Amino acid sequence: MARFEAAKARALARLQRRGADEEIATILQQINARTDFYTTSSCSGRIVLILLPEIGAKREAVFLGKWHRPVEHEEVLAVMEDAPFTEGELWLLAQSPIIHVACRTVEKAKALLQLALDAGFKYSGMKGIARDTGIVVVEMLSTERMDVPLASRDKVFVDEAYVAFIVTKANFILHRGREKLKQFELRLQELS
Amino acid sequence: MARFEAAKARALARLQRRGADEEIATILQQINARTDFYTTSSCSGRIVLILLPEIGAKREAVFLGKWHRPVEHEEVLAVMEDAPFTEGELWLLAQSPIIHVACRTVEKAKALLQLALDAGFKYSGMKGIARDTGIVVVEMLSTERMDVPLASRDKVFVDEAYVAFIVTKANFILHRGREKLKQFELRLQELS
Repeated sequence: MARFEAAKARALARLQRRGADEEIATILQQINARTDFYTTSSCSGRIVLILLPEIGAKREAVFLGKWHRPVEHEEVLAVMEDAPFTEGELWLLAQSPIIHVACRTVEKAKALLQLALDAGFKYSGMKGIARDTGIVVVEMLSTERMDVPLASRDKVFVDEAYVAFIVTKANFILHRGREKLKQFELRLQELS
Repeated sequence: MARFEAAKARALARLQRRGADEEIATILQQINARTDFYTTSSCSGRIVLILLPEIGAKREAVFLGKWHRPVEHEEVLAVMEDAPFTEGELWLLAQSPIIHVACRTVEKAKALLQLALDAGFKYSGMKGIARDTGIVVVEMLSTERMDVPLASRDKVFVDEAYVAFIVTKANFILHRGREKLKQFELRLQELS
């Protein structure tokens, strides 16, 4: 199936060009080393401070801070101080890892999906099957997440103690995501 | 395929016994009226006040408040006052609709998944394919969500103005979920 190989080559070239989060690079390598799989996008989990015009309107979101590592609450407060609140709402988000994997067949996708679910990525699923190539994309996604609004236009609703508290929660979510990635990496050995 | 019919009959009997959220009942009916589909679980979206021992440890969660409708922030505050904080963390969650649909074949699942994605349920996916029956479960899920920690053990981190603010956000998420359900219901006519 030359089309799969061609699509995979394009995806790998894009990955090489853009790079990936350091914490997830070896997992992507291991997936891409397998004949019947390739990764199309990924994030190792992150903490973000974001300016939103509306919930869910991610396209118009402005990222004020983005961290792929645990943060100190002072860092978040520092970014908040300079944030142009008047333009929308300020949210702190903690996001679990997400990986999209293209699979050659439905059977291969099922095998990968089972590994992802077993590793704790409970919101994982097959996102569709291409009509022409039969390629199936599996989205690996976990349930841990935090979405906390902090300020709206000119009004800041939270104090430093609260920011410190939710930062510990955000760091914990990041940590849990990394542990699930480790679990997945162990299980990946079973995937042929 | 008598096994599909048998599984569907069991699911429908369970639905009859347990009932479903009022706002989602007609959609479930329309799905279940189709030969190749049946619903296995659903929620029309909700706002919950929950006591958690640990993020993601949903099994040990205690629901203090659960609303399938917009709430007033006074209702939330009233529940908070009586909450036994000392036992864990108190979170306010706003959750979008979720529907699990069993589909007779992968092709049928693909058609339903496409409708769900088109209606705005962007986190939808096929959760697996049963080895024996070939039945595919599609999880319909949207991205809108809010998870806000309010208190930890003996410490309440938020004031009334903040609770009022996040309640407007929670109500908005509920509203968006209902709109997506309407979009899905319209598109459901295309599903044979």
